[in-house]
This record gives sequence, C-alpha cells and structure tokens, in this order.
Amino acid sequence: MRPVRVGLLGLGTVGAGTVNVLRRNNEEISRRAGRAIHVIQAAARDLTRERACDTTGIAITSDPAQVVRNPDVEVVVELMGGIEPARSLVMEAVAAGKHVVTANKALIALHGNEIFARATEAGVMVAFESAVAGGIPIIKAIREGLAGNRIEWLAGIINGTGNFILTEMRDKGRAFDDVLAEAQALGYAEADPTFDVEGIDAAHKLCILAAIAFGKALEFDKVYTEGISRVAPEDVHYAGELGYCIKHLGIARRRDDGVEMRVHPTLIPKRRLIASVDGVMNAVLVYADAVGPTLYYGPGAGAEPTASAVVADLVDVVRTLTTDPENRVPHLAFQPGRMADLPALPIEACETAYYLRMRVDDRPGVLAEVATLLGNAGISIEAVVQPEPPAGITEASLIMLTHAVREQQMNEALARVTRLAAMKGDVTRIRMERLEGD
Amino acid sequence: MRPVRVGLLGLGTVGAGTVNVLRRNNEEISRRAGRAIHVIQAAARDLTRERACDTTGIAITSDPAQVVRNPDVEVVVELMGGIEPARSLVMEAVAAGKHVVTANKALIALHGNEIFARATEAGVMVAFESAVAGGIPIIKAIREGLAGNRIEWLAGIINGTGNFILTEMRDKGRAFDDVLAEAQALGYAEADPTFDVEGIDAAHKLCILAAIAFGKALEFDKVYTEGISRVAPEDVHYAGELGYCIKHLGIARRRDDGVEMRVHPTLIPKRRLIASVDGVMNAVLVYADAVGPTLYYGPGAGAEPTASAVVADLVDVVRTLTTDPENRVPHLAFQPGRMADLPALPIEACETAYYLRMRVDDRPGVLAEVATLLGNAGISIEAVVQPEPPAGITEASLIMLTHAVREQQMNEALARVTRLAAMKGDVTRIRMERLEGD
Repeated sequence: MRPVRVGLLGLGTVGAGTVNVLRRNNEEISRRAGRAIHVIQAAARDLTRERACDTTGIAITSDPAQVVRNPDVEVVVELMGGIEPARSLVMEAVAAGKHVVTANKALIALHGNEIFARATEAGVMVAFESAVAGGIPIIKAIREGLAGNRIEWLAGIINGTGNFILTEMRDKGRAFDDVLAEAQALGYAEADPTFDVEGIDAAHKLCILAAIAFGKALEFDKVYTEGISRVAPEDVHYAGELGYCIKHLGIARRRDDGVEMRVHPTLIPKRRLIASVDGVMNAVLVYADAVGPTLYYGPGAGAEPTASAVVADLVDVVRTLTTDPENRVPHLAFQPGRMADLPALPIEACETAYYLRMRVDDRPGVLAEVATLLGNAGISIEAVVQPEPPAGITEASLIMLTHAVREQQMNEALARVTRLAAMKGDVTRIRMERLEGD
Repeated sequence: MRPVRVGLLGLGTVGAGTVNVLRRNNEEISRRAGRAIHVIQAAARDLTRERACDTTGIAITSDPAQVVRNPDVEVVVELMGGIEPARSLVMEAVAAGKHVVTANKALIALHGNEIFARATEAGVMVAFESAVAGGIPIIKAIREGLAGNRIEWLAGIINGTGNFILTEMRDKGRAFDDVLAEAQALGYAEADPTFDVEGIDAAHKLCILAAIAFGKALEFDKVYTEGISRVAPEDVHYAGELGYCIKHLGIARRRDDGVEMRVHPTLIPKRRLIASVDGVMNAVLVYADAVGPTLYYGPGAGAEPTASAVVADLVDVVRTLTTDPENRVPHLAFQPGRMADLPALPIEACETAYYLRMRVDDRPGVLAEVATLLGNAGISIEAVVQPEPPAGITEASLIMLTHAVREQQMNEALARVTRLAAMKGDVTRIRMERLEGD
C-alpha cells in the first residue's frame, strides 16, 4: 500500500525525535501498520538551525500554514507547543479534513472541546497520546483498556521536573531553589520553570485525564493548582519519619456531587508503588471498579519517549483511514453526545487528610490547645510528633497528621489555630492521600 | 444503534464477573462504545449450580455449540479454559464469521497461530487481552501503545500465585510448602497448583507477550520453564542481604541471533520498581528503543479484573464491526505476512548473571578453589558472602553473585565445582537480572 504522507509542524526536540524514530523503526512500524509512514514536509521556525535529525526527503519551510495546506499531506502532526498559531493551524487542518496528531497539552486542555467538536463534524481524528505523560500510553489505557470500568479516581506524577526536584530534596536533604537551579542546568526545567514547579503543566494533563476518565468536558480553569516551590526540606524530612513521602500529584476523583480535580504536593504512604517513582519518571495510578488499581509508569518527557507516543498515534490514525467515523475511539473516550454533566468541585469541597507543621512556643500545653481547636472543628488527629528542639531554642515544631476532612473545615480550624498566642507564624499544611489499592 | 449480541461459553468465576460488569457498567460502556452490549445466551457445565450473577434475559444451555451456532449471537466470548472443547468451539465460531473474545492463555499459546490464520481468512477478530496479566491492558499497550518502537526486552511478574508465595517467603521467612498450602486455602492456587508454581501458566503468557513484542509466531514449546518450588528460605534471605529480591519472572529478550524466552526464579535489585510488586499483583516491564522503560501494573487474576479486560476486548470488537479487516490491529501486533523469523534460543544460549549458594566444608581455602574454577571458565565474581556458621557446625555456606555469562559456560563450570572434595551436595543457582531502565 502507498505510504501515508505526514506533515510536521515543528522540528525542535520532539519533531526531530519523531523523524528519527520513524526512520530508524521504519520497517517495524510498517510491519505493524500495514503501510509506511513518510514525513514529506516540515515547518521549522529557524531554517538555518542545525537539525537533530536527517531531513533527507523532507521539504522544510518556515511557514507552517504551507504544510497544513499542502494537498499531499494527509496527516498533520503539531509539535510547536503554545496556543497560537498552533490552535489556528490545527483548526485549519481539521476543516480541510485532515487527521491531526498533537503533543500540545495546553492546546488540548484549553481548546480541546472546540477542536474535538470540529473534528467530529469533519469526520477526522485528533490524537493526543503524547500530550500526557510522554511515552506512557495512558490515554489509550484509560480510553480503551479500561473501557469496561467505571473509573473512580486517578492520581498521577505527571511532571518530571517537579518529581526530580522532590526526589533530590528527599534523598539529599537539599533545598528547593538549589535543586531547581540544577534541573535548569541539566535541561530538565525551562529557563522559566513556572509551568513545571507551579503545577500548570500538571494541571493541563490532569484536566485531560479527568475528561477521558469520567466522560466530561475539559475544564482547565476548574483545576485547583498548587506548586512545589513552598515545600520545605523539613517537611520532606518529617514526612519521611512518619512513613510518607511527598509527591506532586494530579488527582481526579469522582463523587456523587461532582469531580475533584487538584494538583498539589501530597503526602503518600511510602509503601505504595507510586511512592517509589523517582527522578524524572512519570506514573499514573488509576482506580476503577472492575479492575481495581492499575498503574502505568515510564518517561514523561524527552525527544524519543514523546515521539514514541506521536508515532503510536500515527499508526492508530493510519488504521482509521478507512474506518467509518462512528466506530472510532471517541476523542474524550465517551461518545460526544453522551458526555456527563458532572460539576467540577471547588477545592474547599475536596476531602483529604492533612500534614500540619506548626512552629510553637516550647512550653507544655500548646499541643492540648491545638488539639482542642481541631477537635472542636470535627478534625481527628492520627499522629503527633514533637521533635526535641536543640538546647537554647525556645521555638519548637509540632507536626500532626489528621484524618480526612473537607478543606473548608480545615481552613476554618486553622484560622483559629493561627490566632493562638503560642503560634509562631503560619501553619504549613500539605494534603495527604492514602491511595489505597496497590 | 441496536445492541451487540454476545454469547458466553462458560459461566464460572470470570463468566459471572463479565455478566456483572456488563450489567453494572452498562451505561458507561455504551457511552464509550456507542452501543449497548447484551449477553443473550450462555453455556454452563452444570445447569443446576447457583450463579454468581443475575442471569435475567440470558438463555442458559449446557451445550456450548448451541451458543456458537445461535444465529443471533454476533460475538462469542470463550471463558471455559483448557484446550478442548474450547479450541473446536473457537474455530467453529471463526469459521462462521463471528468475532471471538477469549481469556484462554493455554489455547492462544498452543493454538494461536492456527486460530489467527483462520480468523484472518474469515475476516474476524480474536481478541485476547484477558489472557495475559488479567486486568492490565498489556496486550493493547505493547501492540498499539508502543507501535513506534523496536521492543528490546520485557520482564513480567505474570503469575499472581507464585508472586504471593515469594512475597510471603520474603516477608515472613516462611517455607514454600507452608505458603502454598495457605494460598490453596485462600483460593489463590488451584488444588493442583502445578501450572502456577511450575511456571507453565507464566510460560503461556510469556510466549504470547514475546510474539506480540517481536512480531514472531507463538512458540510455547521453546519457552524455558522453571518453577519456584525449589526456592529455599535461605536463598530468599541471602538475596535480601545482598540487596536483591527473588521474583518469578517471565523474560523475553531480542538478540541478533534470536529471542530468549524463559520463566524462572530471578534475583532483581530491590531498587527496581518491579521489585516492589508484591502479593498477587502482576506487572510487566517493557524496554523499547524509543520510549525506554515503561511498566504496567495491576491485578493479574480474579473475576472482575479479568472481566475488565474481556469487556475492553468486546468494546474493541464492537468498534471494528464496520472496519475493513485490513485496517484492524493485527492479532500478533504485526501484519500476518510480515512476521519475523527470529529463532527461539535454547536456555544454554541465554545470558544471565547468577546467584550461587554452596554448602561447603568450613575450612580455609574452599573459596579460593571455587573462585579458581569459575575464573578458569571465564566467569567473574561480583560479590562473595560467607556467613559465619553456628558454633559446632562444620558445614558452611558460600554465596556468590557472578557477572553475566552464557548458561552453557556456567553449566560446565558448576559440573567441575560440584566435584570439589569440599562441596556438600549440589550448588543452588538462581539467575539474576539487573533490569536496567527504571
């Protein structure tokens, strides 16, 4: 059969990785797909830059619209990132009846609803496996592999830079700023690391995972997002002493009254498998009613891991070229007309356990005062640690683990705790999840 | 759209689980698949037995051929297990142009080549996600999710009973027979546990994984298979002291000259993620050239986890009902005409590192004698432990870890070591893999 002709938008790290993987594994890929996949044109921002791939046979242009409009291009692969011009180019490709593969999580999280609606009208696929957790086939696992299940919740380590920083803080007792500087030097984190460390990148991905898990529209603006920049080395230490480690998790949970979607530093028991996912690796734990817990682990970023997912999408697209559109896997896992109307819950309505660290006067009675205020608010305490302060220091630390409580209740109780005379400054709080299942 | 009508062969644990999942998640499933999936007939061995599911609306027969021949049945789900009559019934369904879903690993491992050839001729799908690792969507992950990769190797904990036994031996220092008896009492292990503890069940699954990973025919009789019944508590203990744990792994590795396929107790470093997979859980670690390492974890058995995979297959089949056969995912991942001719290598040609435990006279010089024989055979030693024997005992233990060596070389060297005068009985050896990647 004639090769499928692909146009690339973007020839940076992932673009070059995709060209390399398609060339190197050309034979394996066509043995699987039943036909070859050829990149015939690519758009690059800077035509003079040296490429990390062999561009023989690929017409290179600085105008991405040329690629979209090239009548020989059957599938458009968007690897530029950012919202514009990626959004307009994808919409134009869809309108022209071309299938699209994209690695652009921001684009899908913010404009996916509109893009998928147009794609459904046009009878084309927009595939986005590479937009979440890099090379891990998590979209396919949830959308197809768990199709028999009612998915209850999922929790993912879906930002490698953040996980690298937390792993280094734990293993070497280093401070956040120090590790971040190293991550930037190593090329893991961008010069502006806000998207990684403030959780925005993870929130993009979580919003996509929640949509396909529960069959609801994408609602990026409803994801509660808290970064890791305020996680202190002492919290990493005390969490460890209590049998927990701190991970930056994206959590989506179905409740009768809606869906919790939140990204924040989270204490999880060390014995959970996902607690052992370290460094830049990603993992997503999914809890579903029939299968129970399943976990998917692998590299969440990088040229070839991302290219692996891009090529898997290309193979899927090649297979659907002659499938009637009604029988394809729906973009958001559920049929467009049958999405659920589950409201996204605000963080104040979410329920988690808490780790609390307070700096307090080193005198008897303080623990009782705090415990009384929490008890009055209906918050029960699971564990208390009062590390001995060094000689001569009059300020002590008080660490508590609580049972699960609604965030609103905790906010109110902590407002009262903070006003105690013995309290020095604000209470540090980190949410805690037991992730039972594995 | 009209519901898809399914006939079940077998209404035992997994059959009842499948009916329960289809009923309970009927709405979620049809929202995904675009149409409902109804079980209209089922064959059960004993018509008088109480069912673990609601059979309202399902015609029950004791004759499975009736289900296959029922003109209203569009998809046949085979959950009987065993080779016959399952094989004949599946072949009849395929010949009648019906799609088949099966959880039968023995059937696929032994007769898959023939079944898939007939299915391809008849233009139907035979789906078998539930045959390997229960609810983990590992077939889909390898066949579709990693379609862009050249897969280099995979290693799986693919028998839950065996993993439960090894976990108990490690955590509680218990003996094999003792834990096996408990597993039987708990219902994990069959009354005849041979398939589980001698590795035959794992070999069925490994043979399937190797075929779809490398695009080669199924060759069950070429899988080297060694069970866990001879793993001694002291080996579990010494492995732990050296930083390893013992897992019963199925390993498939591509080499230039062929494919290694082997199931055996294996030492793996404790720090690998797969080393933390305990109890009855399963996991498969796959190493592929573009993505690197990915791991898939979940329950490998049980009524609803297996049903989860059966229903995922049903949804896939429903989606392909109008797809032209050439564009479906090939049964063994690669197009039938383009399978590789990679020979399966005998165990003597496989390369692994080794853990060796010898019972020797407690006198100086024995270590040197053993080390000399191994050194002469080109085997280098990574670590040696000589635990102090209790007072009054003249028999000592000598434990060695070696670097990787071809099995044939090790056989020859150990034949010489065993003849040393200081040696008491046979040398215990357990293969060791570093599984680098995670």
